[in-house]
Amino acid sequence: MTEGELKLLGRWSSPFVIRVKMMLEQKGLNYEYIEQDLLNKSELLLKHNPIYKKVPVLIHGDRDICESLVILQYIDENWSKTGPMLPVDPYERAIARFWAAYIDDKLLSSFIVIMKAATEEEKAGKIADAHAALELLEGAFMKCAAGKDFFGGDVIGYLDVTLGACLAWIKAVERISGAKLLDETKVPLLMEWVKRFLATDCAKNTLPDVERVEKYGRDLQVARWNVGFG
Amino acid sequence: MTEGELKLLGRWSSPFVIRVKMMLEQKGLNYEYIEQDLLNKSELLLKHNPIYKKVPVLIHGDRDICESLVILQYIDENWSKTGPMLPVDPYERAIARFWAAYIDDKLLSSFIVIMKAATEEEKAGKIADAHAALELLEGAFMKCAAGKDFFGGDVIGYLDVTLGACLAWIKAVERISGAKLLDETKVPLLMEWVKRFLATDCAKNTLPDVERVEKYGRDLQVARWNVGFG
Repeated sequence: MTEGELKLLGRWSSPFVIRVKMMLEQKGLNYEYIEQDLLNKSELLLKHNPIYKKVPVLIHGDRDICESLVILQYIDENWSKTGPMLPVDPYERAIARFWAAYIDDKLLSSFIVIMKAATEEEKAGKIADAHAALELLEGAFMKCAAGKDFFGGDVIGYLDVTLGACLAWIKAVERISGAKLLDETKVPLLMEWVKRFLATDCAKNTLPDVERVEKYGRDLQVARWNVGFG
Repeated sequence: MTEGELKLLGRWSSPFVIRVKMMLEQKGLNYEYIEQDLLNKSELLLKHNPIYKKVPVLIHGDRDICESLVILQYIDENWSKTGPMLPVDPYERAIARFWAAYIDDKLLSSFIVIMKAATEEEKAGKIADAHAALELLEGAFMKCAAGKDFFGGDVIGYLDVTLGACLAWIKAVERISGAKLLDETKVPLLMEWVKRFLATDCAKNTLPDVERVEKYGRDLQVARWNVGFG
């Protein structure tokens, strides 16, 4: 199946969508991007992701692939000759999968609660959770990168795009909450990684403007939409 | 690294542990099993899974692998010559990964709530969720098995052990709640799969007695331990 048949149903603000865009970018694949309105779900979305009715959905010819981490692995395995994004070694793959799931379970989930917290106490608790998660990711970076520039080594890999796709939100949540999430004294290696990652073409071509994300986050706070990041 | 260095930290009642036992069984791997008490966590568990402090943990020499679906893939990739448990085709792999995550997110999560529900209304809602999840899995079976005996085709695969490891709990939850979860009129293909799966050596050698699980589930209801399935 050729890449000409690739379509991505997404939402500009979703870190889950952005990581798929990053993977497609790194693989050099062309695709048609179709923006979705999650407050008014399209027939297209309901048809191609009837189970969760969420973005991202990758449509590859007559195949529908849902759930962002599943999509990343599909793209990597299907276009395996173009720079593997997951490590080759089974143990390193296991570690990458573990931390990718951790980012979703612990880091991203804390952002929405920080923004929507009903009390200062709840907010402070979730900020502490986000700090704890980032400090563990600092340790994961030390092990995965092992002195190199990226989680993936010399070049961007699976964990780089999984975490990198969150960067606009990390900065937006900092602005909205007034709390510093990325603190140089606590996560110095991760801060260096952020600079390197943001300087890549992959990041420049896919990450939304922090101002736009911030505005969206503030709208989310007021409207209390139940649509997560997008 | 040889299989002689394999250890599994587990809990007899956990479907997440049982699926790992099933994978090791299918691969014909020998390992040392070390039962854990989750109400009084061991130094061993805290050392080898400091992030989540949960079972299962697979210890392979100096490598610690956590999170059951990550462990299953590690075992499959590391001992890839002994009957691959994930499909070979990238799309079929994506589908298997999607449904495995679905089983954890939607099916297993409903069991604990059914047992611990504070009101009949909450219980009925979660029973309806479990029915809906099983009906979707019936559809998934049709597509994955495509007329063959198992999700994996002619032999047990990744999705078979992921769902198969839940079977003792499905029956125990039926007994405890008085609700029929597996209904022949709604999921006839899945019912046939259950019979075939329970007849395998893999199931016979790894699934706990339903009576014991039922007793444990009733204890869980009374004590309201926050330890999930084990």
